Amino acid sequence: MKILVVGAVALGPKVACRVKRLVASAEITMIEKENRYSYGGCGIPYFVSGDVPNIEGLCSTSSHTVRDDVFFRKAKGITIQSSTEAVHIDRKAKKLTVRDLNSGRTTDMPYDKLVLATGATPVVPPIPGADLPGVSAVSNLEHAVNIKEKIAKGGVGKAVVIGGGAIGLEMAEALADMWEVDTTLVEMADQLLPQALGADMSLLVRNHMVSKGVRVQLGDTVTQIVGDPQTGVSAVQTKRSLIPCDMVILAVGVRPNSRLAAAAGLATGRYGGIVVDDTLRTTDPDIYAGGDCIEMVHMVSGERVPMPLGSLANRQGRIIGTNIAGGHARFEGTVGTFCIKVFDMSVAKAGLTVKQACAAGFEPVHSVVSQSDRAHFYPTHAIMHLKLIADRHTRRVLGVEAVGPNGDAVKARVDAVAALLPYQVDVSAISNLEVAYAPPFASAMDIVNNAANALDNIIMGYNTPIDVGAFVSDFNARKTRVLDVRGQSESKPFREKYGERWLNIPQSELAERWAELPKEEAMCLICDTGPRSYEAQLLLRAHGIANTKNIQGGYGMLSKSNPDF
Amino acid sequence: MKILVVGAVALGPKVACRVKRLVASAEITMIEKENRYSYGGCGIPYFVSGDVPNIEGLCSTSSHTVRDDVFFRKAKGITIQSSTEAVHIDRKAKKLTVRDLNSGRTTDMPYDKLVLATGATPVVPPIPGADLPGVSAVSNLEHAVNIKEKIAKGGVGKAVVIGGGAIGLEMAEALADMWEVDTTLVEMADQLLPQALGADMSLLVRNHMVSKGVRVQLGDTVTQIVGDPQTGVSAVQTKRSLIPCDMVILAVGVRPNSRLAAAAGLATGRYGGIVVDDTLRTTDPDIYAGGDCIEMVHMVSGERVPMPLGSLANRQGRIIGTNIAGGHARFEGTVGTFCIKVFDMSVAKAGLTVKQACAAGFEPVHSVVSQSDRAHFYPTHAIMHLKLIADRHTRRVLGVEAVGPNGDAVKARVDAVAALLPYQVDVSAISNLEVAYAPPFASAMDIVNNAANALDNIIMGYNTPIDVGAFVSDFNARKTRVLDVRGQSESKPFREKYGERWLNIPQSELAERWAELPKEEAMCLICDTGPRSYEAQLLLRAHGIANTKNIQGGYGMLSKSNPDF
Repeated sequence: MKILVVGAVALGPKVACRVKRLVASAEITMIEKENRYSYGGCGIPYFVSGDVPNIEGLCSTSSHTVRDDVFFRKAKGITIQSSTEAVHIDRKAKKLTVRDLNSGRTTDMPYDKLVLATGATPVVPPIPGADLPGVSAVSNLEHAVNIKEKIAKGGVGKAVVIGGGAIGLEMAEALADMWEVDTTLVEMADQLLPQALGADMSLLVRNHMVSKGVRVQLGDTVTQIVGDPQTGVSAVQTKRSLIPCDMVILAVGVRPNSRLAAAAGLATGRYGGIVVDDTLRTTDPDIYAGGDCIEMVHMVSGERVPMPLGSLANRQGRIIGTNIAGGHARFEGTVGTFCIKVFDMSVAKAGLTVKQACAAGFEPVHSVVSQSDRAHFYPTHAIMHLKLIADRHTRRVLGVEAVGPNGDAVKARVDAVAALLPYQVDVSAISNLEVAYAPPFASAMDIVNNAANALDNIIMGYNTPIDVGAFVSDFNARKTRVLDVRGQSESKPFREKYGERWLNIPQSELAERWAELPKEEAMCLICDTGPRSYEAQLLLRAHGIANTKNIQGGYGMLSKSNPDF
Repeated sequence: MKILVVGAVALGPKVACRVKRLVASAEITMIEKENRYSYGGCGIPYFVSGDVPNIEGLCSTSSHTVRDDVFFRKAKGITIQSSTEAVHIDRKAKKLTVRDLNSGRTTDMPYDKLVLATGATPVVPPIPGADLPGVSAVSNLEHAVNIKEKIAKGGVGKAVVIGGGAIGLEMAEALADMWEVDTTLVEMADQLLPQALGADMSLLVRNHMVSKGVRVQLGDTVTQIVGDPQTGVSAVQTKRSLIPCDMVILAVGVRPNSRLAAAAGLATGRYGGIVVDDTLRTTDPDIYAGGDCIEMVHMVSGERVPMPLGSLANRQGRIIGTNIAGGHARFEGTVGTFCIKVFDMSVAKAGLTVKQACAAGFEPVHSVVSQSDRAHFYPTHAIMHLKLIADRHTRRVLGVEAVGPNGDAVKARVDAVAALLPYQVDVSAISNLEVAYAPPFASAMDIVNNAANALDNIIMGYNTPIDVGAFVSDFNARKTRVLDVRGQSESKPFREKYGERWLNIPQSELAERWAELPKEEAMCLICDTGPRSYEAQLLLRAHGIANTKNIQGGYGMLSKSNPDF
């Protein structure tokens, strides 16, 4: 059995090794344009920052063997043809034409099974100057080495990162944190991580980045990158300002590399990714594809989307390998699980944001809970913010977002919910989700359970919530007063600042003092993190004071998302 | 509506508050023997250790309000009758007879709904001296205060903890770590945490405790506790030795408090817990029960078991509250998720151990994987050990166990698998479990995915494994040689120590050198963590060398479980 694999970064090597393990006699060749293989591309920002001291760290196994062509030949029994580009598939003759990038010579290679692991290419926006030498996408190890060398030489005092997605944020941190480069991040949308977070949650990330010295320009568009004969670039011109800089990082997303497939008549989808079935076969039964070059089913929205992540590529690689070897493995789709470290803050999400859920035809409703990530009496506890989203009518859980300082703790909550997303579970499944409990790890009622309980209370009409963003806008427009049900000392600075607009009755006194309150006027209720203001809302409603809204996540969420308060 | 709740620690207050929130007019009284309510009993070891500086920390809300009877009356609208014992239920008349423990007077209290939150009581083994004053269970705050005071006064140089379950381990750590008490832990079973871990995984815990200075005596039984007029105790006599000590902690488990229920004719189960349906109603439709005093369905084994955990009590409390308020909430059961911090090591599990799975009628098969808990090139990575268990025939996932230094990371993996256990998923669901990936949090192929892949390979017959425990026993009995496929330098000390019994061919040279190996003789294959020895096994099998076993978890697992190697 002759197997050709186009691409030798993530999915390609995984397929090749899996097939070779199951079918010792298989003849497998990987075709690769570059001279580096099987590297951890997702580690590039950590190489640039210095967390990973040298580039070999990204190209080695966990036992410190560099994954070069000798390694693949001797340890894996797999051939690599490097500096070689696949240029044409003759599906009828089952031949792949490849071109040697050094000699320019083309050769035809026969295959029984062909695997397309062609990856994705960074999008270069059509702006003047995007092709200047000081402008770099972060898409391969050579880029990474060049960026790091330039910085290490002291040649970069100021940098602009274009794009507020994962790679943009990671690169901004790498530049600002370790190298103290004066960094500005420009994002076209009015929030960071628009694919991953709702607006309120993303404000937490923006504020954290700003507190670490990164300038963040949201809702702004780059119109030109200005060249400089010395450093390559001298400035970035946006609609709002001219930002002087010595380096520009382009991180506005990637596009599936599907040209080879499309030219051979294989189907591609709405986003340009190769279409595959659940065995990861393309529309040609002898050609498989996976990783960044395909579109896959989003198991919550039902839409076919690209999802360029090394983790998915690896999981898919094993499935393709199994199927080529005669097995029956399936890839059902993605739930869009995602995580990122941003300085000392971690962010994770799975499923759909509220906006994405609306676009997919759901009627989303959500809760936001601020709570300790372990028992509140345990010394290392810290506040996590978690948002849970469900469909109002079916109560199906649609998504989860979490932000907090303890990264693994944030990941733990999101991963547990992510596991259930393909099973279309009711909110009550999260109320009773049996996550592990002991005081050093969780509260007896974990934040993920509480978020589901809050969401259930909202759906059932017990809890009438308002997001911090909507509250701030209503409060500033003088459409609502605040009833602060925390203690007197906590509310004092606010009463002094806002006078009659910021009322205070501690929750424990409310049963005796509710009659002091205006009966019809709009009031937003606030406490530390949400539970007491919910309790207050129920008590007031029982006494006929019903025009109240409970600020989701309480002061914990308000102060982190709107530090002016 | 009059509601009586017997017990005011975890489930009781949760029920009371939930009902009150949903039905403002409900009259709710909690009956409690003690004078402390709604405390975090699971925090007691952390109070004893000093992590939680004062006892109020365990009795306060996250906003530092002490949950006393005034708090419950004013903030929650709930009455507490403390120092009061429930002595009799007249189900026909719907009356509860209670006794004031100060005056001895009994009163009849009518109810519409009665909730039994009577908890559990530590088992006191029938050994002479178990009732001596220097012997303490750790079941309420008074015990905790007494223990801590005695230690703080310097009156405890040596202590014996009886019982190697969660509380025993937490107490041993509290004594040995913060107070440097010379501590011996005695456990009847031949391993620690017998309910939570298989033998191999529990060895990691034992060795870690020993490395921290705790003496661990497994497979030993206490026959007598010897009294002392000064300190209360002077020694613990076991079958194997006499252990001098100034304090004894009894932690051999708890028993559901179901006497009140049983006396009223309510059904109790095999383990003495109150029988409830999935609405948490007892066999009397007006009486609910939950928490440590009931038995619940184990959703993997199908058996009804007690599961005394504050987290379950809280989740169940909300369900009972909802149902009393006229709602329709269900508690489907438990999957036995559990976690514990043991010094700098964290342990988590869910589902069944291999032993429990056998007892439940499954034919369990398992994988053990040692792997970095984040990208192996990321600086803070550390090795985690994870065991995944499934039924050989149905491939249904039955359980997961994990041990590692980063607690939240260990919890993250187990929680994600735990979420799926009620859904009876195939091993492939864990292979493709979409846990969040970025280098600071995980490998592209996460340990949980790899454990499922290894398990799939075992079930499919590609991987023929051996546990480290079985390997050590076979190797010591000279039933097998070792083929070490790591590099020469790593294998050198072993070749020097074991000579011809410890062969070495690096995996990358095996394709050329396999013919040097004995063809029929038994060989156990080892590498760092498992993948290379698996690869070696396949290669050797393809060349007709088939009498090999792959040591699960590799040298990572062997060295941690058997430090003599």
